[in-house]
Amino acid sequence: MEKKIQNGEEEEELKGPSSSGDGSICGYDSLHRLLKDNLKPHHFQEVSRLLTGLHCGKALETIDLPESVSTVSVKHGFDLQAFRFHADKELLREPRVVRVGLIQNSIPLPTTAHFSDQKKAIFKKLEPIIDAAGASGVNILCLQEAWMMPFAFCTREKRWCEFAEPVDGETTKFLQSFALKYNMVIISPILERDINHGEVIWNTAVVIGNHGNIIGKHRKNHIPRVGDFNESTYYMEGNTGHPVFETAFGKIAINICYGRHHPLNWLAFGLNGAEIVFNPSATVGELSEPMWTIEARNAAIANSYFVASINRVGTEIFPNPFTSGDGKPAHPDFGHFYGSSHVSAPDASCTPSLSRNRDGLLVTDMDLNLCRQLKDKWGFRMTSRYDLYAETLAHYVKPDFEPQLISDPLLRKKSL
Amino acid sequence: MEKKIQNGEEEEELKGPSSSGDGSICGYDSLHRLLKDNLKPHHFQEVSRLLTGLHCGKALETIDLPESVSTVSVKHGFDLQAFRFHADKELLREPRVVRVGLIQNSIPLPTTAHFSDQKKAIFKKLEPIIDAAGASGVNILCLQEAWMMPFAFCTREKRWCEFAEPVDGETTKFLQSFALKYNMVIISPILERDINHGEVIWNTAVVIGNHGNIIGKHRKNHIPRVGDFNESTYYMEGNTGHPVFETAFGKIAINICYGRHHPLNWLAFGLNGAEIVFNPSATVGELSEPMWTIEARNAAIANSYFVASINRVGTEIFPNPFTSGDGKPAHPDFGHFYGSSHVSAPDASCTPSLSRNRDGLLVTDMDLNLCRQLKDKWGFRMTSRYDLYAETLAHYVKPDFEPQLISDPLLRKKSL
Repeated sequence: MEKKIQNGEEEEELKGPSSSGDGSICGYDSLHRLLKDNLKPHHFQEVSRLLTGLHCGKALETIDLPESVSTVSVKHGFDLQAFRFHADKELLREPRVVRVGLIQNSIPLPTTAHFSDQKKAIFKKLEPIIDAAGASGVNILCLQEAWMMPFAFCTREKRWCEFAEPVDGETTKFLQSFALKYNMVIISPILERDINHGEVIWNTAVVIGNHGNIIGKHRKNHIPRVGDFNESTYYMEGNTGHPVFETAFGKIAINICYGRHHPLNWLAFGLNGAEIVFNPSATVGELSEPMWTIEARNAAIANSYFVASINRVGTEIFPNPFTSGDGKPAHPDFGHFYGSSHVSAPDASCTPSLSRNRDGLLVTDMDLNLCRQLKDKWGFRMTSRYDLYAETLAHYVKPDFEPQLISDPLLRKKSL
Repeated sequence: MEKKIQNGEEEEELKGPSSSGDGSICGYDSLHRLLKDNLKPHHFQEVSRLLTGLHCGKALETIDLPESVSTVSVKHGFDLQAFRFHADKELLREPRVVRVGLIQNSIPLPTTAHFSDQKKAIFKKLEPIIDAAGASGVNILCLQEAWMMPFAFCTREKRWCEFAEPVDGETTKFLQSFALKYNMVIISPILERDINHGEVIWNTAVVIGNHGNIIGKHRKNHIPRVGDFNESTYYMEGNTGHPVFETAFGKIAINICYGRHHPLNWLAFGLNGAEIVFNPSATVGELSEPMWTIEARNAAIANSYFVASINRVGTEIFPNPFTSGDGKPAHPDFGHFYGSSHVSAPDASCTPSLSRNRDGLLVTDMDLNLCRQLKDKWGFRMTSRYDLYAETLAHYVKPDFEPQLISDPLLRKKSL
């Protein structure tokens, strides 16, 4: 059963059909599938137009992947979906189509297993899914946040820090071989141990180039202090700025998890030239689900780039019960990670989401020319008046900042 | 029939059920009603949880308005809906419940009528709706963008400038009496003529206090250059900053129309302390509809305030055909303004939208204590690292700005 994080007396009401424990909604594993199976086709078409947007004037195209890949997905029980975003033909530029893969997964072993066995089991579980991405011709693959461990930050126990690794540690080495084999850029979000700076822990995405080389890293900029997300206990705000990585397949950036709630974080990656921003996440049921597509799609629209969102799957049970700062009894789980990985395009359209309760691979073709086309169409960057906001923020961060407030003089009179 | 603004060969495909001319979707006048009437109750409940969010753990409460108000809405054929957002009880603060009203409407006379008659007819049409808001006990009422005229900026003809008025002109005078009569703050978005500055035209929201006094004005900060939104032909970017108006019923701000695409604009109103930000708009069908709730809800979530969104209704036909910069023949209309006014809360929930094709009054109770409660819960303001972004923007606006780009060295080698 999902742990409920919202406050208030009404909490019990949350035990709707969604809290059945398997992460399904009324027996369906995604909103898209529930709507498609229960609405008349012309209603579904119109609902989709309003909810996910038309792309180039029609529903998003699906891609046929190799049959071997489908076979693997059935054998290993992971959700497999594939879609294509087009762009208008241009006269002076060729199309720049990139195939992006996103992997979401649950942890295979109990959190009571030996740490070494847990990590190995995750590697082993991911292998066929990464192979499936490679066999699908994926150019850029991204895994979920801290994918090489359970999301143990709810416990506040420091022993989980043992999972942390240097940027060139065993997890990176494991992925480098796949990057080389499949000529594939891989983004690997890990818990990082910074040996050269006194063993400091970071929440980091390692970017592995398509030749198996390490291009660089980015450290999570914004750290949550909400519900069971006790991450500020484990690591601090990142010190790597907002790097954009120029890869063989396009300019990419990584906005890790909670950073998606910060429009300025999305903005800065855009100002540095990102064409695809990945958002590897770990987030649970009632806390964030209604925000999940809203924030991703808004970022894609406002910044004229693609956003690729990944969330882990399943409920992770920890050995020692912990409290959640809500006055309720201790309990051993974080709630249900609801998967639902998806891609948002700058034209306000988006793919359906992967399953809420199963591992999954989402493959998406995107013509990166769409980014500039949307910039030219809407002109958001041009009309943004950044000079005004540079001043506003410089003013705001001063301790003696006073807001621009215009009070009703009659109100003042009344108060006196 | 709706005019299609998107580019590309697929344009004809857009003629779906939505382009039936009456603005309905498959015969329903809102997405909410289509889903409610066509899904099983337990499916609808779960879809609502994911799409509009639960509020305090359950579906949004409706409010019973006086029967006289319902009677007026039936007589005058406008959509009437009313909802309530709660907040948790606090020990040190009393609830601060404010009743907000939003009005959306079509223009009553053809655009060929005498300008004076057009304006009078709009006043006359609005009168019973404003009275209904007053009789419903609305504390703060907001009208749609440039509500006292047709949205003529698609024509590029300067004669429509005749509609512009000073801040204390006849439109403001018309509303002042209602403000006084009903003890109601009224936000009146007009086309402003600034007599004292050489007859300059602005897109302005006038804030009228609950004693009928003018508290102040705000001028639209961001001006579109997209599709038929030729507004930069008529007026320039506003020079009033991001004022928050302290009224008898809370701290409010106005983000006019296209400003909703700019996260920094939303942010600045938040930094200045807004608890409700109104977004009076005029926007059409295929251009923006999938973005409409995304941007509003994201702003409410990211800034921990309420967002009240209004869009005009109907298709306005102009005397002289005009082109749209898409290479297509001239035509006399701007497309269908799809109404769909709604309110978004900082907890990620939102009201259903008003009709896509009829005038409407949306009444919403909101406990403003919810804003600070969400700030305390999520800590977005606290974790925002504004100092970092003040630097980023100061750097970005310099002509010699260079993005933070990390290139794959193997890529460079290959290029050489």
